[in-house]
Amino acid sequence: MPKTALVPIADGTEELEAVTIIDVLRRGGVQVTVASVQSLQVKASRDVNLTADCLIADCRDKTYDLIALPGGMPGAEHLRDCAVLTELLKKQRKEGRWVAAICASPAVVLAHHGLLNDCRATCYPSMQDKLPSAQSAPVVVDKNCITSQGPGTAIPFALELVSRLHGRNAAEKVAAAMLVKWAPVS
Amino acid sequence: MPKTALVPIADGTEELEAVTIIDVLRRGGVQVTVASVQSLQVKASRDVNLTADCLIADCRDKTYDLIALPGGMPGAEHLRDCAVLTELLKKQRKEGRWVAAICASPAVVLAHHGLLNDCRATCYPSMQDKLPSAQSAPVVVDKNCITSQGPGTAIPFALELVSRLHGRNAAEKVAAAMLVKWAPVS
Repeated sequence: MPKTALVPIADGTEELEAVTIIDVLRRGGVQVTVASVQSLQVKASRDVNLTADCLIADCRDKTYDLIALPGGMPGAEHLRDCAVLTELLKKQRKEGRWVAAICASPAVVLAHHGLLNDCRATCYPSMQDKLPSAQSAPVVVDKNCITSQGPGTAIPFALELVSRLHGRNAAEKVAAAMLVKWAPVS
Repeated sequence: MPKTALVPIADGTEELEAVTIIDVLRRGGVQVTVASVQSLQVKASRDVNLTADCLIADCRDKTYDLIALPGGMPGAEHLRDCAVLTELLKKQRKEGRWVAAICASPAVVLAHHGLLNDCRATCYPSMQDKLPSAQSAPVVVDKNCITSQGPGTAIPFALELVSRLHGRNAAEKVAAAMLVKWAPVS
């Protein structure tokens, strides 16, 4: 059975991060739902126009194997302020399914809502003082949280997500087709 | 004066490559026009929905400092079959302004139209037999052509574009903010 992932987006989401997560997960056979926390069409942080598959309200009563948050400002603040997404994230962490975030989002979304209090995590370097237990690695995995630092770490972050959902072999195949040298987080 | 770039897209364009080019160029202060060779909204190769800034017909009588082609199939074939874009690319090469392409597009678009006959170039490894003078480097610069291999080389490719338009310092600043280790093509 293919695993499922929810990727929330908003105006000001970092488009390279969002699209890398979506693209790599889909290459890895994960069923990805891109949900806007605002209107269906969003203007990302460098003015790329993205249209979501659905609104976050449509995801309220569903469960996903992974919820993965792209960064970007003010995109991360819009994700933080979405009550439906906050509830989904709290439930996800509590029930032991994967929660992932990159760049601004580990600090601005996850730490803000107290979801990293028991986890080592990383984020964009200038925001690491907002994390309870900051690490400086490009990708950090602890309990059911996977976090990463920024646009330059988006591909290894997304490959780690594929690896955790569909196994290391699946991630290695995607990496090879994308011409990426990749090693899993140990 | 900021330099200008045209990034053509189509159904089946590789979205990670397209968005990386657009995002990195805009971070580097380049004025980017995203033009569809089909309708305004396109469905990229992994089903990301992108909306272009305009149609390629709106670009017919303009000149850009750079035309940069993302890859992806069948996106590259749609770029290849667009008469307006083909004319723009021929004029661009002839008049000495930058032409760039990644992944499938150096082979499927540029080589197909005879635009790499006098240039060393690279592309996605499985298509390199279609290039007149194939190189295996991640990014190749020869005359006014810049070519690259695939999703995993999209960031260094886009930084090279910034470097050629706005200088090495501009590219290094973008690379640092994106947490990317980057060195220009020598």
